[in-house]
Amino acid sequence: MRTDKPPIYPIEPWSITETSFDKEQNYRNETAFSLANGYIGTRGTFEEAYPFDIETGLEGNFVNGFYESERIRYGEANFGSPEFSQSLLNLPNMKETKVYLEGELFTMEEGKTEEYKRILDMKGAVLTRSLLYTSPGGRKAEICIKRLVSFEMKHIMAIEYQVTPLNFSGEIKFVSRLQADVENHTRKTNPIVDYGPFGRRLSPVLLEGDRQAFYYQGITKGSRRTMACGGSHRIYGGAGALRHTVRTGELDAELVLTVQGMKGKPVVLEKMLCYATDLDRKPEELKEFVSDTLDLAHKRTFQGLEESQRSYMQNFWKTADIRIQGKDSELLQQGLRFNLFHILQSAGRDGKTGMGAKGLSGEGYEGHYFWDTEMYMLPVFIYTEPEVAKKLLDYRYKTLEKARERARILGHQKGALFPWRTINGEEASTYYPLGTAQYHINADIAYALALYLQVTGDVEYLREKGAELFIETARVWADVGSFAACRDGKYCICSVTGPDEYNVLADNNFYTNLMARENLKAALGAVEYLGEHDRDYLEELKHRLDFSLEETELWKEIIDRMYFPYDKERGIYPLDDGFMMRKPWDEERIPEEKRAWLYENYHPLFIMRHRMSKQADAILGMYLHSNYFSEEEIRRNYDFYQEVTLHHSSLSTCIFGIVACGIGYYEEAYQYFSQSARMDLDDYHNNLYAGIHGANMAGTWQAVVNGFAGLRCQNSRLSFKPSIPEEWEWYSFKIRYRNAVLKLTISRQEAEFVLEEGEQVVFYIGEKEIAIREKGGNYIEKI
Amino acid sequence: MRTDKPPIYPIEPWSITETSFDKEQNYRNETAFSLANGYIGTRGTFEEAYPFDIETGLEGNFVNGFYESERIRYGEANFGSPEFSQSLLNLPNMKETKVYLEGELFTMEEGKTEEYKRILDMKGAVLTRSLLYTSPGGRKAEICIKRLVSFEMKHIMAIEYQVTPLNFSGEIKFVSRLQADVENHTRKTNPIVDYGPFGRRLSPVLLEGDRQAFYYQGITKGSRRTMACGGSHRIYGGAGALRHTVRTGELDAELVLTVQGMKGKPVVLEKMLCYATDLDRKPEELKEFVSDTLDLAHKRTFQGLEESQRSYMQNFWKTADIRIQGKDSELLQQGLRFNLFHILQSAGRDGKTGMGAKGLSGEGYEGHYFWDTEMYMLPVFIYTEPEVAKKLLDYRYKTLEKARERARILGHQKGALFPWRTINGEEASTYYPLGTAQYHINADIAYALALYLQVTGDVEYLREKGAELFIETARVWADVGSFAACRDGKYCICSVTGPDEYNVLADNNFYTNLMARENLKAALGAVEYLGEHDRDYLEELKHRLDFSLEETELWKEIIDRMYFPYDKERGIYPLDDGFMMRKPWDEERIPEEKRAWLYENYHPLFIMRHRMSKQADAILGMYLHSNYFSEEEIRRNYDFYQEVTLHHSSLSTCIFGIVACGIGYYEEAYQYFSQSARMDLDDYHNNLYAGIHGANMAGTWQAVVNGFAGLRCQNSRLSFKPSIPEEWEWYSFKIRYRNAVLKLTISRQEAEFVLEEGEQVVFYIGEKEIAIREKGGNYIEKI
Repeated sequence: MRTDKPPIYPIEPWSITETSFDKEQNYRNETAFSLANGYIGTRGTFEEAYPFDIETGLEGNFVNGFYESERIRYGEANFGSPEFSQSLLNLPNMKETKVYLEGELFTMEEGKTEEYKRILDMKGAVLTRSLLYTSPGGRKAEICIKRLVSFEMKHIMAIEYQVTPLNFSGEIKFVSRLQADVENHTRKTNPIVDYGPFGRRLSPVLLEGDRQAFYYQGITKGSRRTMACGGSHRIYGGAGALRHTVRTGELDAELVLTVQGMKGKPVVLEKMLCYATDLDRKPEELKEFVSDTLDLAHKRTFQGLEESQRSYMQNFWKTADIRIQGKDSELLQQGLRFNLFHILQSAGRDGKTGMGAKGLSGEGYEGHYFWDTEMYMLPVFIYTEPEVAKKLLDYRYKTLEKARERARILGHQKGALFPWRTINGEEASTYYPLGTAQYHINADIAYALALYLQVTGDVEYLREKGAELFIETARVWADVGSFAACRDGKYCICSVTGPDEYNVLADNNFYTNLMARENLKAALGAVEYLGEHDRDYLEELKHRLDFSLEETELWKEIIDRMYFPYDKERGIYPLDDGFMMRKPWDEERIPEEKRAWLYENYHPLFIMRHRMSKQADAILGMYLHSNYFSEEEIRRNYDFYQEVTLHHSSLSTCIFGIVACGIGYYEEAYQYFSQSARMDLDDYHNNLYAGIHGANMAGTWQAVVNGFAGLRCQNSRLSFKPSIPEEWEWYSFKIRYRNAVLKLTISRQEAEFVLEEGEQVVFYIGEKEIAIREKGGNYIEKI
Repeated sequence: MRTDKPPIYPIEPWSITETSFDKEQNYRNETAFSLANGYIGTRGTFEEAYPFDIETGLEGNFVNGFYESERIRYGEANFGSPEFSQSLLNLPNMKETKVYLEGELFTMEEGKTEEYKRILDMKGAVLTRSLLYTSPGGRKAEICIKRLVSFEMKHIMAIEYQVTPLNFSGEIKFVSRLQADVENHTRKTNPIVDYGPFGRRLSPVLLEGDRQAFYYQGITKGSRRTMACGGSHRIYGGAGALRHTVRTGELDAELVLTVQGMKGKPVVLEKMLCYATDLDRKPEELKEFVSDTLDLAHKRTFQGLEESQRSYMQNFWKTADIRIQGKDSELLQQGLRFNLFHILQSAGRDGKTGMGAKGLSGEGYEGHYFWDTEMYMLPVFIYTEPEVAKKLLDYRYKTLEKARERARILGHQKGALFPWRTINGEEASTYYPLGTAQYHINADIAYALALYLQVTGDVEYLREKGAELFIETARVWADVGSFAACRDGKYCICSVTGPDEYNVLADNNFYTNLMARENLKAALGAVEYLGEHDRDYLEELKHRLDFSLEETELWKEIIDRMYFPYDKERGIYPLDDGFMMRKPWDEERIPEEKRAWLYENYHPLFIMRHRMSKQADAILGMYLHSNYFSEEEIRRNYDFYQEVTLHHSSLSTCIFGIVACGIGYYEEAYQYFSQSARMDLDDYHNNLYAGIHGANMAGTWQAVVNGFAGLRCQNSRLSFKPSIPEEWEWYSFKIRYRNAVLKLTISRQEAEFVLEEGEQVVFYIGEKEIAIREKGGNYIEKI
């Protein structure tokens, strides 16, 4: 566990600033400065379109949910191995804008660049680059480029490119290009896969340009999906007539806009860029849709969209921001805001898409959605932006039918099994021991759904989608295991992989069994609720799902008799049945440069035969369902897992930090939190280039709220156990709960709870029930 | 368990006869009539070279050890996944011989064929086809074609093609062809693999012909291995001058030999065919070698080689034959002889090659060598043809260095890990849960070696190769597991796969732990033996292997404290730690047509989560090391495994039969044996077309000798427990033991032991020691 890296960017409260153009760090910075709105994602590349090599940068433009497929080849295929891949496809780039100052190309690789700044403004969701430029020919200009991906208009990315000639008046030429000869950098970004996508995977259907716009429509070679993109341009400022020329090639279109610049007067190019796919419109409607959307965007103007960004963010930060006062608080606060900003950007919010492990910031993990969404991101959204949470749950509901089909392939005659990794709802993991075997995904989705329902009180959602999701996921749990005589008739679940990817195909993975039991309880609860409140709908469900109440009898049996591995001597829950038997791990035998890259350097059998853990697994279960365990019990387990966990997953430290708080290990908690908070901002894993670590980003919010403040929502009971790290004077955050917004401010002496919105709120501190019954009312707990 | 299939071929003591040409059954018959000598293998195809489609036949000519490689693609590759395949390559065919009777092509698809017979003579190791043919034009001829693959000359296959015109005198034309445009039928013969070989993989380097010979030399595209083949022709009989013409194409060569036939006088074409590879000679020497070898073969003449075959077989049968008198004895005896004949043909005997699971009879399993060699075939050879056994062990010794490298890849700093499947000594299994995870291969090789040493008393071999093999295999066992506090400090081995391929990546597989302990004991014994008898060599070994006697202290600890899963209530040894916990198997849920093809129809997770077993696993261990278990204990285990075993592997029933004998379940034993004996001859698995099931073939010999007669050789003690199935009057067989040949004849009343060769033999019946101390002496035990 390291927290010793110096900050990469200056410490600032609301922004990330790059103060010089550094080609060496370009690839990493492209991720840090990436923008997205849950639909479009674009990497922080330059408008100049430098021809960087594959180790230096990756131009990347993505649309959530838009993927390419290729036939997957296997050494030996298993029954049920996915036949086709799903890879988030890198789409045509339209950001490219070359500027000529009286014929001289602006490029930071030549000429002189001064006062360079690139600022990611997290309050405004705008990326701004500004600099003073002197060309080799001595022409000076001030250049300021703003970029945003609009939260208001999901299909729009916008650029405002401002050039102010400082020591000359003369021709300013913008060459704006749509470049469709693009491909994923699979060998670099997903080196482990061998099925691509390789090469250009979009075939152009239409490519055209006119005086101020260009348009491209293409179809993927494998998945046969259609996408369209177009850009539209306006120029403001400058003297003299505007000249346009247009050139369209086979795979690109170039618009040349020339204007007479006047010394000291800014010339502004407003570029509106639109992406759309057949997920939104029929292919034949795309062209008109893009054109209309671009018109609308110009009507809104860049400035209008910029203001809209600011108000969107203001609304977000109003609830989601965490404020900290104390040692390193500026450092941590910047990290926290960077993290929250990126997960907000990354989450699909149209009910048709999820959230990739790397958001929309890169090609890593092929853009797939994993359990990260439900276990790491969703809790944050549930308490801060419940509408986003709901849309992410909608996505799972939308793919329920595919999960049912998958369950059949796995031999379950009833129920649904969600895929371990996916974009379109079908399983995309090609190595089942680390993929499909992670059955816990079902329970994770059910957990997030249950949390959503408890926190929001959205009973409608339970009726519309929730109950069905609970029932269908639960049915797989009722089929996968059995009551084993050799374990006193307890219910055992064999041959699954828990979250810990170093212990695969285990029997009775503690986390899985614990979460499966909750899944069954949630399903049972849903059925009982419907039985009381909506008999008609229950009857409909029973009919539609071929579901009978007898099944719930089995569920009850399983809930009562779920088996958990237990080591009596140590008083701990081993990770799984075989864990305590494995060989002790001897890190000394592993050369240092290989330690964090076990699967790259060691055979899976070597890894799985050792008693060590990649990441929080049993510990995660004890955090989520801490109500079942005494503090002493959690402490014993924490002590044990602390020894055997290598934290080789970015999903680990934040959870250990939370659990450490719960048992009074505040110093360790603070260490874990510190590293989590700045993990990406300071690139602790040295792989930010490939994309953000969304789960850890969300985990840091949890580390404060669920960790230091001890928030839990279990059995529909909101509770806190406030604490504060020694290093801090106070910290403050808000959560949404039912119709309330509750603000907490925790200092070294006390925790103050203020009801900022809503009529009342009830919560617990330990066994003490606290109710605040008027808006603005407060409660103070001494600590 | 079925034994109800009617015999496919007539029941005959020493031959397999086909009485009509049946295209529907051609693919299967090609395997049944395949010939080999452990080096060359050729399928039972016709000289007419009918253009059968891929479902009807496969022309196949193979050289043991000669393989093609292709880069293997994986969905996701693991560290240590083999990068290149090894596939026994289908080589150019030279058997093709078309015959024209006064211009009319002989083909069984036209004209009239009478008195058709194809006979595999298992006493002569010759395949003979004879028939009376009437051409559409009314020409009658007697045709008789003999084929052999020479045991005397390993590079030689020989054909004698005799045509006797019956109602005409006129031109007889032979068109003999070398056809090098060949490819493996991978999609059909190994449908599960996706890396080939596809297409023609041999590139011609040289192709030429002269008046009576043709020659081809080619190099494989992937593995860059060179092979050569050539044919040489002589014609005898006939009147008039012999005319030759030759034509060589890019991928074939055709020799046309024309002679004047006389009514009633046979014309005979003697075709000598030679295959050789760079495993035997340098590429530049191959041409001369082939030419010289062909000359030599002609000098020996077909008849000479035929006689040599007969005497080779006579020598083999003299010891290896099993005679049975009683119900169904002819049926069983034919099955047994067919089985022994085929394994004799299949075994590599040059110390550079092993024995494929399908011998040299087809492309199934890519021609790979598995544990089948050591656990099924070798025991038969050890007791009947110890020189062949020794050569097979030599092959493993020869690949020891590669096994050392593989152990390093698996993370073992010392020792050697043999590959699960291979040709060249490198691991070729692309799916490690059913491949590399089968660590038991190491102990299997050590078992066969120990048996060889005990039975032959070949102390030299222990010194030359055996000790090193024992030590290096043992070292992996000493590293793979650990003493687990949670199991009373017993030695546990986690995450390996036992023989049972339905229970993968298990902890404490009973068979593996048992066999590993024996491997360690054998290594310890070898070290102790050398310490007493050959200190110098021991010192050299210690130096060469960086081996210290301290390691043996750990071995002793492990031997003392090896852990075995045990179910106290049932008094049985579960297959592995998790076995009793798995879901009960409900065959009713499986549609009948899918029952025997689980991996083809069900996801691996579905299979591994159920409590059932593909094949003999724990039971096999209890057979091999029955000395550790009471009869009562074995009975309990047998009863248990009898219930849960599906026998979906051809390696299963013979072992159950043997164990059934040991506990007095003679009726079941007889059933199991009956099915094993005729499994291939009656094609019980419906896949004989892809090649023989060598392991089961050898297993049937074991079923009689180790089963009914109860032979064991444990702790250097030869013992018997003679029994006889109710159906039989008597049966008789011989074994070699040290310098003796011991003949047993077991009737319903008594077992007679006769020392046929050698000066003395000592053996046990129960605890009773019996010694026969003169050649010809006997001992009779009442039963």
